[in-house]
Amino acid sequence: MIEGLREKYRRELLESVIPFWMRHSVDRENGGFWTCLDRRGEVYDPRKYIWLQGRQIWMFSRLYREWERREEWLELARHGMEYLERHGRDEEGRYYFRLEPNGEGSAVQRKPYGAVFAMLGMLEYGRASGEKRYEEEAKRLFWRIREWIARPELLGRPALGGPRMQQLADVMVVAAMALEIAREDGDERYREVLGDCLRRALWHREAGREVLIESVGEGGERFGHLPEGRLLNPGHSVETAWFLWLVMERLGDWRERGTVLDLIEGSLREGWDREYGGLYYFVDIEGRPPLQLEAGMKLWWPHTEGLYAAILAYARTGEQRWEEWIRRLDEYSFRCFADGEYGEWFGYCDRQGRRTHELKGNHYKGCFHLPRFLLFSIQELEGIR
Amino acid sequence: MIEGLREKYRRELLESVIPFWMRHSVDRENGGFWTCLDRRGEVYDPRKYIWLQGRQIWMFSRLYREWERREEWLELARHGMEYLERHGRDEEGRYYFRLEPNGEGSAVQRKPYGAVFAMLGMLEYGRASGEKRYEEEAKRLFWRIREWIARPELLGRPALGGPRMQQLADVMVVAAMALEIAREDGDERYREVLGDCLRRALWHREAGREVLIESVGEGGERFGHLPEGRLLNPGHSVETAWFLWLVMERLGDWRERGTVLDLIEGSLREGWDREYGGLYYFVDIEGRPPLQLEAGMKLWWPHTEGLYAAILAYARTGEQRWEEWIRRLDEYSFRCFADGEYGEWFGYCDRQGRRTHELKGNHYKGCFHLPRFLLFSIQELEGIR
Repeated sequence: MIEGLREKYRRELLESVIPFWMRHSVDRENGGFWTCLDRRGEVYDPRKYIWLQGRQIWMFSRLYREWERREEWLELARHGMEYLERHGRDEEGRYYFRLEPNGEGSAVQRKPYGAVFAMLGMLEYGRASGEKRYEEEAKRLFWRIREWIARPELLGRPALGGPRMQQLADVMVVAAMALEIAREDGDERYREVLGDCLRRALWHREAGREVLIESVGEGGERFGHLPEGRLLNPGHSVETAWFLWLVMERLGDWRERGTVLDLIEGSLREGWDREYGGLYYFVDIEGRPPLQLEAGMKLWWPHTEGLYAAILAYARTGEQRWEEWIRRLDEYSFRCFADGEYGEWFGYCDRQGRRTHELKGNHYKGCFHLPRFLLFSIQELEGIR
Repeated sequence: MIEGLREKYRRELLESVIPFWMRHSVDRENGGFWTCLDRRGEVYDPRKYIWLQGRQIWMFSRLYREWERREEWLELARHGMEYLERHGRDEEGRYYFRLEPNGEGSAVQRKPYGAVFAMLGMLEYGRASGEKRYEEEAKRLFWRIREWIARPELLGRPALGGPRMQQLADVMVVAAMALEIAREDGDERYREVLGDCLRRALWHREAGREVLIESVGEGGERFGHLPEGRLLNPGHSVETAWFLWLVMERLGDWRERGTVLDLIEGSLREGWDREYGGLYYFVDIEGRPPLQLEAGMKLWWPHTEGLYAAILAYARTGEQRWEEWIRRLDEYSFRCFADGEYGEWFGYCDRQGRRTHELKGNHYKGCFHLPRFLLFSIQELEGIR
């Protein structure tokens, strides 16, 4: 079964997913990428969402560098990069969340993630194009994002009462950025950051269940009396776990190898819906009611992250325990999300796996999780990562 | 069928709903009301949410004034009022969204709704208790909220590009507040506000469909190219429509009577799920994909608002068209949401009407929509409103 995956994923990437974004997302008039695309690729919201500009720039730059040097891919990345550079930030260098069709910023988030994906796009585009200044600006932005995470008031979040918590997503994105930088930059500071990420991520580990929960104190204290202190996002948990594998690899420090593998398996096991299949979006690990209305829904991206993590673990360890997870996640994902007719994947199903939305992209779903999973998985299956 | 409703609703209010909140929500140690309560009433988040403090104060004060002068109801309202007064605001008089168990503010919203429900609670408690200063402070707060709505930057929303839109919810809450004030205050300014609300609300009317959409320009322009410009929240639409009936009544101006009745019917017709029953949470009126993941879910409150609107319309007009809606909404609501075993209602179902959450309250669901609908409906059915 695993033998056939490489070819299946290659076809999905090159014949379904990438053509969809090339055909439908590029705004030649105003610049940038549309991402609010319906099943057939028609635009239902003409505004541009910054998370997804950076992600798509990253994706096409990476494809250009690691799949094939197709000029159209680099051109498309440049198209996004120029737009992001011209319109993405305010005067103080903070990134918007959303831009109007005329390029004006029209929404902000008090979170650093717009900047995170801008940084990743800039770094990869700089390396793909050879324009050093992008790589340098990306590194400057990296340190600024670290500051924003440490001091959220800089992004306009008022300093208020209540326990100060560390968010798993923050640790994960810092690891993701530092990993990308450290692939081609030997500066010791990035290795130090990676070591710090590994240590901090493991503060989120729930021993026994072997999952990473969303929020802990700064030092790892538990807030089990609060919903966010009991919250598991299986997609985040498994995505962070596969980043931790890459961190260990980069550091050449395998002391937490068994723990990280168990976290991949634990995230899949605890996130899996035993009645209807698929990974939940959110789970309260003590079985209390989650505050999120969409908790029981099944989203495409926890499945792409889970499936890549299982493939990574299988490719690196050869352990049999991963085969069943790969089979199960691949079957569920392609059955519920793939669209053989118009390309790309649907994103959202209810608990029973019925589609709730016919869209292919929105303000969070763009050209990222699915093609990244396909590319990375093919690379693992070829043993070339 | 309608003959039995009054007694059914009386029992639901007095034997199921109110006892649930009296028994489980009152924090005697720290003050205020818990609202994150599971099926049996156990607290799963000990923090206090400001929207729901004000709403519960309003509800118990109203019951005291209009149902029966039970000392325990007034005492409970006072319990909430003292807590809200002590902890609800920052130094500049802006209301928090959430308080820690020790009373410290730990989250804000850049929206005026915390203040809206505080204002309503204060006003009604002031009238119930006879403590004039609360009523006066509520009126001062009313004018301040109008200012916050007109100038969102006062609540920390940065002034950015993009079309400036009027939100239906803002018109509705101003009408709700002014209606409450004007019940016992003949000041002409509140009548002027009500006339303005009627006029502005009708900017949201989609002729033909006869619904009120969520967002229009300041003057009624349409933004059909944007998701929010096509967004229908059937619960908001029908709730605003019943407020408009009360506005017409207060103004003694019935020129829009037919329009408002058609808006009640249109909201129910366009919001109804013809396949599985129940009112959707969100609908894109042009059938494009909604951005909200929870769009297809069925929530308790659009049903309580729709049912009360139909009962109001029936009681005031005697028209037959309302009977089928009353039967249909009553049947759906009690089947999907009522809990004969532990009291109160569940709040959240999937599109098929299966419960997704076992909770009775959270950060938005508290002691408000359900008991208000029951009280108001009984009053309509008795012909005393």
